[in-house]
Amino acid sequence: MKIIIVGATGTMGKHLTIAFEKEHEVIKAASKGGDIQVDITSAESIENMYNQAGPFDALISTAGPTYVGPWKKMTEKDFKKGIDGKMMGQINLVLIGQHYINPRGSFSLITGALTHDPQKNFANASAANGAVEAFVRAAAIELENGIRINAVSPTVIENSPHYFPFFPGDIPVTMQQLEFGFRKSIFGANTGQVIRL
Amino acid sequence: MKIIIVGATGTMGKHLTIAFEKEHEVIKAASKGGDIQVDITSAESIENMYNQAGPFDALISTAGPTYVGPWKKMTEKDFKKGIDGKMMGQINLVLIGQHYINPRGSFSLITGALTHDPQKNFANASAANGAVEAFVRAAAIELENGIRINAVSPTVIENSPHYFPFFPGDIPVTMQQLEFGFRKSIFGANTGQVIRL
Repeated sequence: MKIIIVGATGTMGKHLTIAFEKEHEVIKAASKGGDIQVDITSAESIENMYNQAGPFDALISTAGPTYVGPWKKMTEKDFKKGIDGKMMGQINLVLIGQHYINPRGSFSLITGALTHDPQKNFANASAANGAVEAFVRAAAIELENGIRINAVSPTVIENSPHYFPFFPGDIPVTMQQLEFGFRKSIFGANTGQVIRL
Repeated sequence: MKIIIVGATGTMGKHLTIAFEKEHEVIKAASKGGDIQVDITSAESIENMYNQAGPFDALISTAGPTYVGPWKKMTEKDFKKGIDGKMMGQINLVLIGQHYINPRGSFSLITGALTHDPQKNFANASAANGAVEAFVRAAAIELENGIRINAVSPTVIENSPHYFPFFPGDIPVTMQQLEFGFRKSIFGANTGQVIRL
């Protein structure tokens, strides 16, 4: 199977690359480094990525810039970070990628527990996650040729201890749990699901 | 109670205006007509609306432009309609409005069943709704001085029969049900809730 991992040089992407490249052809896409450079806030850059990668079977996205900061001073401009990044970036990966993906392929996006379990300072990520999850359900009934789409939704991950204080009481998700979430999305048969870890 | 209704000249807004102005001071805001003109896609216009309205106790939003159309050709540009309108428009009503609303006031936004129950051609509305609902949960734990926020979520409404064919099997929501949803949000004590009709 040919798998594109967007965000391949990040904490999650590195683990997933190592996990999947044993048995699959993995194309590493990232803003810096990797096999292909991509800026997910640019539709043109996404189009270029797909043209360079060629037809593929699965797309994994772990890319999700959002704004983290105090609520009272948050403006539309701050909010734009998550809208252009984690939200519209991932939505564009699908809207554009549907024209490049092989039949019976799959898209696996990243969201997070903040959709339903908010934390202070993270309203931008909550909104972006909520949008992506609802989009995943909507896209699942639109995509043709057996193409599937799911979201993988972790809470704080074990490799990001600097975030632990912002998620009191949340048991960090292990990298293996994260990997298994993506395995379920890619190699399972479900579509339109939010896979909560 | 002083209530601002954004979208007051629309199908839903007209009904809510008549329902609430019997017992409350209602300020009608709309893109055209009403007491105050507001373009919710512009933060500056929202700021002007609040300055003209003065301190208030409740904000109702029924304003939600989104893109409706075939999936395969949908682009980032089409998607922008719901992001700037139903999503960011309503989020800005809160981010800006928090600085004008009276203590123990409330924000009541509009979403819709498409968040969890998608229909073909409406992926943009699904994403906008999902974002607003997650934002409402996040805002509820951030707002201070007893200020509350909820979303009211109808499916297709009885006064929009031209939409019925797009929502097969959905029993249309009556204007009275819609009104009671907003009553629950404004006069009840809950916050961070999605009131499904």
